[in-house]
Amino acid sequence: MGNFQIRTDLALEARESITEADSELRGVRVEEYYLEKEDIQVTKVMIDTKNAAKAMGKAVGTYVTMEAPALVEPDEGYHREISGCLAKELLDLIPDGDRELSVLVVGLGNREVTADSLGPQVVDNLFITRHVVKEYGKAAYNCSRMNLVSSMEPGVMAKTGMETAEIVKGVVSETTPDLLIVIDALAARSTRRLNRTIQITNTGIQPGSGVGNHRNALTEEELGIPVIAIGVPTVVDAATIVGDALKKWLDEEMDKKFDSRLAFAELNNMYMTGKDIDAVIKRVSFTLSEGINMAMEKNNVVCDG
Amino acid sequence: MGNFQIRTDLALEARESITEADSELRGVRVEEYYLEKEDIQVTKVMIDTKNAAKAMGKAVGTYVTMEAPALVEPDEGYHREISGCLAKELLDLIPDGDRELSVLVVGLGNREVTADSLGPQVVDNLFITRHVVKEYGKAAYNCSRMNLVSSMEPGVMAKTGMETAEIVKGVVSETTPDLLIVIDALAARSTRRLNRTIQITNTGIQPGSGVGNHRNALTEEELGIPVIAIGVPTVVDAATIVGDALKKWLDEEMDKKFDSRLAFAELNNMYMTGKDIDAVIKRVSFTLSEGINMAMEKNNVVCDG
Amino acid sequence: MGNFQIRTDLALEARESITEADSELRGVRVEEYYLEKEDIQVTKVMIDTKNAAKAMGKAVGTYVTMEAPALVEPDEGYHREISGCLAKELLDLIPDGDRELSVLVVGLGNREVTADSLGPQVVDNLFITRHVVKEYGKAAYNCSRMNLVSSMEPGVMAKTGMETAEIVKGVVSETTPDLLIVIDALAARSTRRLNRTIQITNTGIQPGSGVGNHRNALTEEELGIPVIAIGVPTVVDAATIVGDALKKWLDEEMDKKFDSRLAFAELNNMYMTGKDIDAVIKRVSFTLSEGINMAMEKNNVVCDG
Amino acid sequence: MGNFQIRTDLALEARESITEADSELRGVRVEEYYLEKEDIQVTKVMIDTKNAAKAMGKAVGTYVTMEAPALVEPDEGYHREISGCLAKELLDLIPDGDRELSVLVVGLGNREVTADSLGPQVVDNLFITRHVVKEYGKAAYNCSRMNLVSSMEPGVMAKTGMETAEIVKGVVSETTPDLLIVIDALAARSTRRLNRTIQITNTGIQPGSGVGNHRNALTEEELGIPVIAIGVPTVVDAATIVGDALKKWLDEEMDKKFDSRLAFAELNNMYMTGKDIDAVIKRVSFTLSEGINMAMEKNNVVCDG
Repeated sequence: MGNFQIRTDLALEARESITEADSELRGVRVEEYYLEKEDIQVTKVMIDTKNAAKAMGKAVGTYVTMEAPALVEPDEGYHREISGCLAKELLDLIPDGDRELSVLVVGLGNREVTADSLGPQVVDNLFITRHVVKEYGKAAYNCSRMNLVSSMEPGVMAKTGMETAEIVKGVVSETTPDLLIVIDALAARSTRRLNRTIQITNTGIQPGSGVGNHRNALTEEELGIPVIAIGVPTVVDAATIVGDALKKWLDEEMDKKFDSRLAFAELNNMYMTGKDIDAVIKRVSFTLSEGINMAMEKNNVVCDG
Repeated sequence: MGNFQIRTDLALEARESITEADSELRGVRVEEYYLEKEDIQVTKVMIDTKNAAKAMGKAVGTYVTMEAPALVEPDEGYHREISGCLAKELLDLIPDGDRELSVLVVGLGNREVTADSLGPQVVDNLFITRHVVKEYGKAAYNCSRMNLVSSMEPGVMAKTGMETAEIVKGVVSETTPDLLIVIDALAARSTRRLNRTIQITNTGIQPGSGVGNHRNALTEEELGIPVIAIGVPTVVDAATIVGDALKKWLDEEMDKKFDSRLAFAELNNMYMTGKDIDAVIKRVSFTLSEGINMAMEKNNVVCDG
Repeated sequence: MGNFQIRTDLALEARESITEADSELRGVRVEEYYLEKEDIQVTKVMIDTKNAAKAMGKAVGTYVTMEAPALVEPDEGYHREISGCLAKELLDLIPDGDRELSVLVVGLGNREVTADSLGPQVVDNLFITRHVVKEYGKAAYNCSRMNLVSSMEPGVMAKTGMETAEIVKGVVSETTPDLLIVIDALAARSTRRLNRTIQITNTGIQPGSGVGNHRNALTEEELGIPVIAIGVPTVVDAATIVGDALKKWLDEEMDKKFDSRLAFAELNNMYMTGKDIDAVIKRVSFTLSEGINMAMEKNNVVCDG
Repeated sequence: MGNFQIRTDLALEARESITEADSELRGVRVEEYYLEKEDIQVTKVMIDTKNAAKAMGKAVGTYVTMEAPALVEPDEGYHREISGCLAKELLDLIPDGDRELSVLVVGLGNREVTADSLGPQVVDNLFITRHVVKEYGKAAYNCSRMNLVSSMEPGVMAKTGMETAEIVKGVVSETTPDLLIVIDALAARSTRRLNRTIQITNTGIQPGSGVGNHRNALTEEELGIPVIAIGVPTVVDAATIVGDALKKWLDEEMDKKFDSRLAFAELNNMYMTGKDIDAVIKRVSFTLSEGINMAMEKNNVVCDG
């Protein structure tokens, strides 16, 4: 089949798009397990070499994907079990995750565009402690060891006139956190994955990724501290999905090669999204916030007596 | 070419989709003119008979379409010239538009979903007079004749548990306006028309129309007063656009019949929208509000002395 | 002490302002109890006669006040114990509360003014069932008996041009609920009660009450169905508090009579509110929503087998 | 009279509170003029010495106050004449204002608290150019000389865990603007000045000022670049106004000394604000944005031919 450019932010989908002949791609390891009670399928794609990174169109690093169909369903407890799984996977990716950390959580995206508002909505619900500990000490929370959590919503370039990377870099160098966690809405290739998949990666944010198509990298290389990115696909790139649909139809009906990008110029910069996106984003962001809150709390050592 | 179901709220597009053989469709009249200074193409589609209505998939009535490419561009004056043109066309469609009227403007749609927030945003900027005139008389505005303007945002069924039509019907029967103006975000068939086309019609809102797919009618028949609907297409139905793209490609490459709805089940209930939708909707809604404000003011007779 | 006009929406405070000589006021009964585990002080003021109503400046009916200091504190479970107590008191006030009911919940107030946004925020979190039961029957929830819950946010007169009472009356007569529950932000007399007191009353909403000073009544007399009002004081009337402060100071320092309303004309229409009002309202509204949700669910009979 | 602590962010009011004997305070100069057509009273208070600064409780620098009663009235053109006056006064305070500048505008305050949302709302409406000029050059705007405008909304410490000053300092050092403009909602002493007074000062933001009571300074000394602060009083400190009201009453009725802060402990951290604050802030912020936009544009040199 043709080799048109895939537009997906999910390493899982990039992996799938590589044809069977390549499937034992060197430098890529895949681990999978299924949490039956929680109905979560966890897949870890580890890209170990630059060659593999090039073939996948993804940076070297670890990509954990949690597929949790329940995420799109309403739940009184905001899917606490998914938050718990997220907390565990997040802690696994944090280098030296078991010491006291100062963590800055950045919510990327545009609060005014529903499908791109995941990041801002997640930081709305975080448990922020840095200012209290700085002012009153850990004793304020009755802890002898405690993570310092801060957060920011840098906004979009059209409104700020600044690259997100400039803003984050400035704040990181002034407030010197040990770790950056970046939240972003992603583009998937398949509508099947919308709003029910969480990707956690230690590669940070690469240029061109996210619903907002970030221009600059937010990576350890750029910022000098580890960067973990957490994302949920909330949109499907329109040209990609048309190309996929067409390819599937052609595969069935005839034997034709075809480049979707050329065919559908009018679809550039168009995104597809579902109709109940507002309620879904609101719920999913709550589940993510809780996952981060849980991860941050696990480190805290409560004083006794 | 196959006869799959068109998903468009624009009579203009429904008209275009009828093939040439039918183009002299009985019971449909079309008038066009171009406003050079304002760069607005105005098309009036008048559906006069039930047969024509059935062929078009649109109710009997008049549909005025203003195509104004400038709408998507930022403008310090919020495109006052387009507001002026809208005011004129709106007044033309109001029966007995030159007497004092009590007008209820209803903003349909979901404020939380950017592409569906046109109606709520338009009513935010209206000049509301009913309560002041009821309390202090027209003298409060130094007018001897003056329209009474009220507005409401009924919200969406998932949040209210009530049909929009139930809510509007109740408020109409309690506050007895002479005219209902309904604002709604529409679905277009072509991305070319997104956010730059205004449709004004005296048919009201039909079931299944709008981004939110209204279930019940808001029409003169249902409500007992004339209903004018003003809409701007802000989304394209995903399955339709895939079908159109595919048809175009097939027409060029081969000779194949094809039903897009069957092919792309996964696209049902998916909408496509542009990336700068938040800023565009904000601007367009302001232009619409001003158009309605202008139309309402034209009727007012200022007292002298 | 002088007899200036009290501005409080709390029957509890109206009761307190009556001096000791009058304390055995005929036609007013008071019951109190304290929930130790939940730290909630419950006071029921029952105004039985028109004379007592006049003396109190409150309509005949029952006023339940829950004083819950914990309400202003953050809590992961959103004070579920307070929601439970609210559910119980609410059910006690519903006539024939143990049969299947269709309930319309109305969130009064202005979403754009933080201190007045309680009503709109409460209806945001309700569990709405009416449209689902109407469409699919109670079987959709696996229940043989189930309350139908709908909700609306009528908005403020400056934006709608209509009285809240007109809008609600229209919707009630069109959708025919059995019961109306109205949520509103209240004005208290004492800053001590701000955001930590919930008043539930079967008198509905009287003219001149609430932060928005409603002009018309929302009562059983007006609407033909029972109306229960739930409110939380979020502001203190500025002139009242100045008067109270001054009176207290004068009582201590000297022996002087004094009318605060005359003294402080510049304070009319000014409200006092705390600095963290946004976070507090967000939390309190969640607790209230849960209380209403619990009350509504208690009635439902789940099918077995 | 007593010497209790004044809580006002307006130099004009600090000046007024100094009694007549001190009125020829050394080191303080006052200039006044009245714009008849626009109905704007302009007062410039120049504090030249540290002693004067101490007496006034305000930093050394220039404070321009525009009193424009029209600001609280609705106006279709959003008070363009006031914007024009603001643009002029702003340019007068910018050092070397007639060369090309890179300007960062910071909107302080809490978007969720109506009275504190002025700063965020002002930056919403600015004309942002920095990213376009960086990417495409000044030619994109057909200019040979052009200011670069960027903006940010740092949020509040309870949500970010960081001091506003830390965030701004980081972004300033990363994006190196020539000038900082800071917008903030202020506390006034008199309700008469609410929402109709604009203060422009070259002293930046001092600790303890603004509705949000900023803890750290945003000044040239701290940031290394000139800082101009623009503010509008949107609240009155409750304890101060009670004290003032009481003092006035006492002055008339008797001869008593009195410290308002001691008297009214329950009023600490309470603010008073008007009931139509949402609509007023929306309008005032638009007028301010336009003033800044005009000031920024005056510098631009449009290319010819």
